[in-house]
Amino acid sequence: MNFTHSEKVADLQKRVSKFMEEYVYPNEKVYQEQLNQQETRWSDIPPIMQELKEKAKAEGLWNLFLPESEYGAGLTNLEYAPLCEIMGRSMIGPEVFNCNAPDTGNMEVLVRYGTEAQKKQWLEPLLAGEIRSCFSMTEPDVASSDATNIETSIVRDGDEYVINGRKWWSSGAGDPRCKIAIVMGKNDPTAPRHEQQSMILVPLNTPGVKIERILPVFGYDDAPHGHAEIVYENVRVPAENMLWEEGKGFAIAQGRLGPGRIHHCMRLIGLAERALEDLTKRVQSRTAFGKKIAEQGVVQEWIADSRIEIEQARLLTLKAAYMMDTVGNKEAKTEIAMIKVVAPNMALRVLDRAIQAFGAAGVSEDFTLAYHWAQARTLRLADGPDEVHRRQIARLELKKYQTSELAAVRN
Amino acid sequence: MNFTHSEKVADLQKRVSKFMEEYVYPNEKVYQEQLNQQETRWSDIPPIMQELKEKAKAEGLWNLFLPESEYGAGLTNLEYAPLCEIMGRSMIGPEVFNCNAPDTGNMEVLVRYGTEAQKKQWLEPLLAGEIRSCFSMTEPDVASSDATNIETSIVRDGDEYVINGRKWWSSGAGDPRCKIAIVMGKNDPTAPRHEQQSMILVPLNTPGVKIERILPVFGYDDAPHGHAEIVYENVRVPAENMLWEEGKGFAIAQGRLGPGRIHHCMRLIGLAERALEDLTKRVQSRTAFGKKIAEQGVVQEWIADSRIEIEQARLLTLKAAYMMDTVGNKEAKTEIAMIKVVAPNMALRVLDRAIQAFGAAGVSEDFTLAYHWAQARTLRLADGPDEVHRRQIARLELKKYQTSELAAVRN
Amino acid sequence: MNFTHSEKVADLQKRVSKFMEEYVYPNEKVYQEQLNQQETRWSDIPPIMQELKEKAKAEGLWNLFLPESEYGAGLTNLEYAPLCEIMGRSMIGPEVFNCNAPDTGNMEVLVRYGTEAQKKQWLEPLLAGEIRSCFSMTEPDVASSDATNIETSIVRDGDEYVINGRKWWSSGAGDPRCKIAIVMGKNDPTAPRHEQQSMILVPLNTPGVKIERILPVFGYDDAPHGHAEIVYENVRVPAENMLWEEGKGFAIAQGRLGPGRIHHCMRLIGLAERALEDLTKRVQSRTAFGKKIAEQGVVQEWIADSRIEIEQARLLTLKAAYMMDTVGNKEAKTEIAMIKVVAPNMALRVLDRAIQAFGAAGVSEDFTLAYHWAQARTLRLADGPDEVHRRQIARLELKKYQTSELAAVRN
Amino acid sequence: MNFTHSEKVADLQKRVSKFMEEYVYPNEKVYQEQLNQQETRWSDIPPIMQELKEKAKAEGLWNLFLPESEYGAGLTNLEYAPLCEIMGRSMIGPEVFNCNAPDTGNMEVLVRYGTEAQKKQWLEPLLAGEIRSCFSMTEPDVASSDATNIETSIVRDGDEYVINGRKWWSSGAGDPRCKIAIVMGKNDPTAPRHEQQSMILVPLNTPGVKIERILPVFGYDDAPHGHAEIVYENVRVPAENMLWEEGKGFAIAQGRLGPGRIHHCMRLIGLAERALEDLTKRVQSRTAFGKKIAEQGVVQEWIADSRIEIEQARLLTLKAAYMMDTVGNKEAKTEIAMIKVVAPNMALRVLDRAIQAFGAAGVSEDFTLAYHWAQARTLRLADGPDEVHRRQIARLELKKYQTSELAAVRN
Repeated sequence: MNFTHSEKVADLQKRVSKFMEEYVYPNEKVYQEQLNQQETRWSDIPPIMQELKEKAKAEGLWNLFLPESEYGAGLTNLEYAPLCEIMGRSMIGPEVFNCNAPDTGNMEVLVRYGTEAQKKQWLEPLLAGEIRSCFSMTEPDVASSDATNIETSIVRDGDEYVINGRKWWSSGAGDPRCKIAIVMGKNDPTAPRHEQQSMILVPLNTPGVKIERILPVFGYDDAPHGHAEIVYENVRVPAENMLWEEGKGFAIAQGRLGPGRIHHCMRLIGLAERALEDLTKRVQSRTAFGKKIAEQGVVQEWIADSRIEIEQARLLTLKAAYMMDTVGNKEAKTEIAMIKVVAPNMALRVLDRAIQAFGAAGVSEDFTLAYHWAQARTLRLADGPDEVHRRQIARLELKKYQTSELAAVRN
Repeated sequence: MNFTHSEKVADLQKRVSKFMEEYVYPNEKVYQEQLNQQETRWSDIPPIMQELKEKAKAEGLWNLFLPESEYGAGLTNLEYAPLCEIMGRSMIGPEVFNCNAPDTGNMEVLVRYGTEAQKKQWLEPLLAGEIRSCFSMTEPDVASSDATNIETSIVRDGDEYVINGRKWWSSGAGDPRCKIAIVMGKNDPTAPRHEQQSMILVPLNTPGVKIERILPVFGYDDAPHGHAEIVYENVRVPAENMLWEEGKGFAIAQGRLGPGRIHHCMRLIGLAERALEDLTKRVQSRTAFGKKIAEQGVVQEWIADSRIEIEQARLLTLKAAYMMDTVGNKEAKTEIAMIKVVAPNMALRVLDRAIQAFGAAGVSEDFTLAYHWAQARTLRLADGPDEVHRRQIARLELKKYQTSELAAVRN
Repeated sequence: MNFTHSEKVADLQKRVSKFMEEYVYPNEKVYQEQLNQQETRWSDIPPIMQELKEKAKAEGLWNLFLPESEYGAGLTNLEYAPLCEIMGRSMIGPEVFNCNAPDTGNMEVLVRYGTEAQKKQWLEPLLAGEIRSCFSMTEPDVASSDATNIETSIVRDGDEYVINGRKWWSSGAGDPRCKIAIVMGKNDPTAPRHEQQSMILVPLNTPGVKIERILPVFGYDDAPHGHAEIVYENVRVPAENMLWEEGKGFAIAQGRLGPGRIHHCMRLIGLAERALEDLTKRVQSRTAFGKKIAEQGVVQEWIADSRIEIEQARLLTLKAAYMMDTVGNKEAKTEIAMIKVVAPNMALRVLDRAIQAFGAAGVSEDFTLAYHWAQARTLRLADGPDEVHRRQIARLELKKYQTSELAAVRN
Repeated sequence: MNFTHSEKVADLQKRVSKFMEEYVYPNEKVYQEQLNQQETRWSDIPPIMQELKEKAKAEGLWNLFLPESEYGAGLTNLEYAPLCEIMGRSMIGPEVFNCNAPDTGNMEVLVRYGTEAQKKQWLEPLLAGEIRSCFSMTEPDVASSDATNIETSIVRDGDEYVINGRKWWSSGAGDPRCKIAIVMGKNDPTAPRHEQQSMILVPLNTPGVKIERILPVFGYDDAPHGHAEIVYENVRVPAENMLWEEGKGFAIAQGRLGPGRIHHCMRLIGLAERALEDLTKRVQSRTAFGKKIAEQGVVQEWIADSRIEIEQARLLTLKAAYMMDTVGNKEAKTEIAMIKVVAPNMALRVLDRAIQAFGAAGVSEDFTLAYHWAQARTLRLADGPDEVHRRQIARLELKKYQTSELAAVRN
């Protein structure tokens, strides 16, 4: 057991941090200004983004998320975690390093389950940061927290599959560069409960794909990416667009969501760390009732609790990453479920304290706190609500003790 | 002691509820659509609002907030509370009944401290719902939770006062009907700490008044009212625009904020009650993991805790209103401070549970939950942050026991 | 609606408070000393108790709990609540006024359901404070939170009933004055689920009644009353000892527990109020890190939150009492369930803060805090655990909306 | 970074666990019975304890706490942590392995600061488990959370020191084997604030040492060890009993408390882990309202949250231990402070949930939950209350940002 990062990681931490300080933080406002100066916030991607991506690529800080060495930097989850955390400190950070959701998850699916042709057509431009992708799983008409509720149909018809259904929260679909969706649906409602589903690749320009609207999150439009409600109406794609094979949708989802969930958690830690830094500075610069706000006992308690909660969440994230690396995503499912509950709730508490410390400024756009809060809040729902994860943790815990042992409560 | 509302109040509750059901709820979407169909969301007030106001006035459900009978309905705070709660269930409700902040607070200031001329010019059109007003107190450059920090200057110069300063969160100033601001500033920094401040009436079309921007709240612009950052640069108004007299700014603020705070709390209870109703219906209409969400124990705990917290907050609000009516706003300050801490935090918890129960739909614009959450969150800051109110409650509690008694902890 | 107690109640409050100050608080230590000086803590009742009871009786502060005027003071629940609160401030208070559990609940059962003979034999000496009683419901071998789980049998055999079963937490059975138990058991396991149970009077000196042990609560023995584990082995009592009639056990329990629960809540409020008073004094008498502990912001937050929580719990208790008086115990069940969840949890929080403020002294016997904490903790379990009450509240809330209305979530 | 224990540690974990299963858990009741069968609970140590100690010594599971290899097992803090956790699962565990407080802390003081003569006389019999010791620091008359408040005097008089003062919570002083106290007092009230204090060795049989009483904790007497209130009245000890030198009391306290604090945290994790195990078994063995309690969603949430909180606390403890090993106790003070806040609060929550799941059985002596709860509660006060640790964490956090940087909150 050892709590020190390797030299390789320490060096990468330094390089990513330096890049953030030099290029990312100073351009957050630039990005927003360029976005607002366009005809609409959806017209195009602010040019600064492409510039930053070029710089990151040039410095070799690119695709660090991909564990496999053929395409990625070959980092383990444990090695990537502290880097992802740093990128997560800025709302524009992950994209700069080509490490943003949902593309990372989609790329992992393609690396693992894609055919050579699928990789050529979609994975390569995604890895190059040329196109973007979305993930169409959640549906408005059913409780999607239970993935078996999903109703979209994927029906084989000759050499094609025909897709019908309504999806929402397909994040990134508003981006003009978004070209491809991974769609989850049912191909066989008569199969066993977790083998009814398939995932299939659907180019967004296929006839019948209609983006009906972009959903706001607490008033934020999340332009230029956006969260789309998409109708798939008699959408036909070639049979070879199927991922892995029919009936594997649930299995892919399980594999996809492990890394996706932990990446979100890493970013949330960065975002909370930044909020604590901001809080700590702010309270030293303002005075009320005759003393610096930093000297108020209640504010000190906020700081201490935030430091404690961040540190604990970080350790649990690292442990979960370590488990994924050593025993595999499936065996690490308790740890992943735990951190998926912990990280968003922790970040929300830290952000809420920071907002309170900033006063009304905290709920405005002058600082990143309110926006980050809204992002973190959705992560108590996205990729499974807290309640579903807690349920899974409890069931695994209960299984540890067989009924036959139950008389054995020591008394 | 008695927990039943009078017949008069019960009748008004019924009438206001019926009005809400018939006219207000069904027009929330209409209001939003009219707003979005305008050239900009700030161009004009959606016409449905004026229609609804006419209806409310016609039914005698108008200006119910005003305790004094000369101008208002002559209701006590205790009588108004349950009505205000019902209006608060809708984001467009209070304005329909001419009971919206900050106009209610401003009207009360004018009723209490205004000269006849001031009443004629500003109070009457406000009471008629023809114009709107804003309140310029908070400043971006100082911790305004401590009102003595305020730096805006109000300097006498002959028959005029000259105002210089920067204010923000002047809510309602974005509204095209908004004509008048009550501005708080310092006229004499050498006076005792709570006698340095004055409040003065400043017509928004006075030269030197510049609305620099509208501040968003968690991404919401709150159009067409908006929260404005306003610069007052060498603004000159006639000396007779002073409210009460020089040095009374702090005293007026104290008087103004009592009713203002409790009105917010009443509305928050309505908003929480509506969220609980929505939650309760939603969880009965959806199924996950083989049973209705309403049958999940955790969800039932949310419902029970919400009911408990709403009920307790309502009782405390009513008690505070009763104290204001019977011993006066000043003596009721502990009760007001208590409910000002309780109500927003309670509403946030109830809304958060409802959002979680609605899943991703909860953070979107399809339901009122996310927007109401953002509104409630600002009320942990507006009119004094929680921490300042808790501090005041504690100090009053500590004063109950004289030092001489301290040996007397029974042991 | 009105938040002022009647003059009659205000006068009684004054008298009970004065009695507590003069006689009860100063004798708490005396009581403990007398108890410890006996051969064992179970040998006898400290003589001071009988003296205090005589004084209370002489002052007419006796049996105030009984709403019915034939036997009691004729106070409503709403009138009794503030008095019970004051008595509850001391661990020896309620008994002094003959208002202690479980006797109050048992006396109410006898008043309502007892025959004249039963009243003569048991109610009268209880009302006179000559004997004491216990209530044998909970069983060690089943989850008694679900009362239908109870397994004790009450079988008719000629002119007698034969009782067999094991009960625990029969509080008060350790008291040498305790003469009678009300025992709940099943007489007909084939009847509908809530009609299988009966309640029957069992004199403790009946052959077959065996007190096996006294259960400690967090290390406290609660002498001289105690919580007993009792075995009933072929216990025979005359048929006329049945309460009401066979199959009414559940109905009596429901009726009995309403007032019992709210009395506990009233006492908990008194106990919390006393803890806050103690905390408030203590922190003004001690200094750490250069200032009075009372000046620490965190401690002020404890004080404020305690005041807020006590006040809210008190209002909810009063409301529940009012509902019991006006619509009856059955209709008031939501309010009773709510306050049963709120009061113990509130008291635990306030006591915990006081303990923390007192430092190590707080967990010792030098102050009442630790003992009161243990008492309050059991009340999250006694008379139904929090979870069962929350479940009931939720179910009543869910019933408000018929399935047919569910499409009507306003969106 | 690596989250797997070394083989050496894994092997020790297995051995200590096996020892606990075979010898310790089955003898918890034996220990209590032997204690209760004595004339008083203070007469002697239950003989089973000496038997168990012999066994542990024979198996080489002895003094594992001592990092230094001359006397101890030579384990690092990181290596000892998981073993201490296992021992902490039983209230009699730590003593069996000679790893119990306050002896471990006192032995560490002697190892570090003791002269050869002091080591010979006191350290060796302590390491052999022949005698026990206590630590006299806290005083009843001042807020001892601020150690500079301590008033006991240690005055040089020729070849002796004279000690006068009143101490309490000198844990272990009730044990008949307790021979020596480490007493903290002031030798020079005019010195700088943290150099006024000294620590000195006082044999308990020195004239003038008077154990006035044993303090209960939530009703528990903690026999046969006990928490003593001790008066030191003109107690004279040879000058060579001084530890290190005059004025070093505060420095020793800082050094002593680091390991002492983390040992408590390790044990708390074991105790919480056991509570979760008990809870998990219990809820599978009982039924209420038609289903196993384990199937109730609320109970599953308790289980999940407990697992999450235990895991996070364990990781933070291990990290703190690692920091102590690698950068030293002084540099690790933030981590130590953090875990000192986290572990007791975590354990209290887990225990409280278990108590609630056990129903009334949970507050009794039939299970270990209530007793463990009381132990854990004192640890929010012992070795510094939560509030003092939070204050220290906040101050270290605030120091990270120099005032000069404060303008730099990114906005």
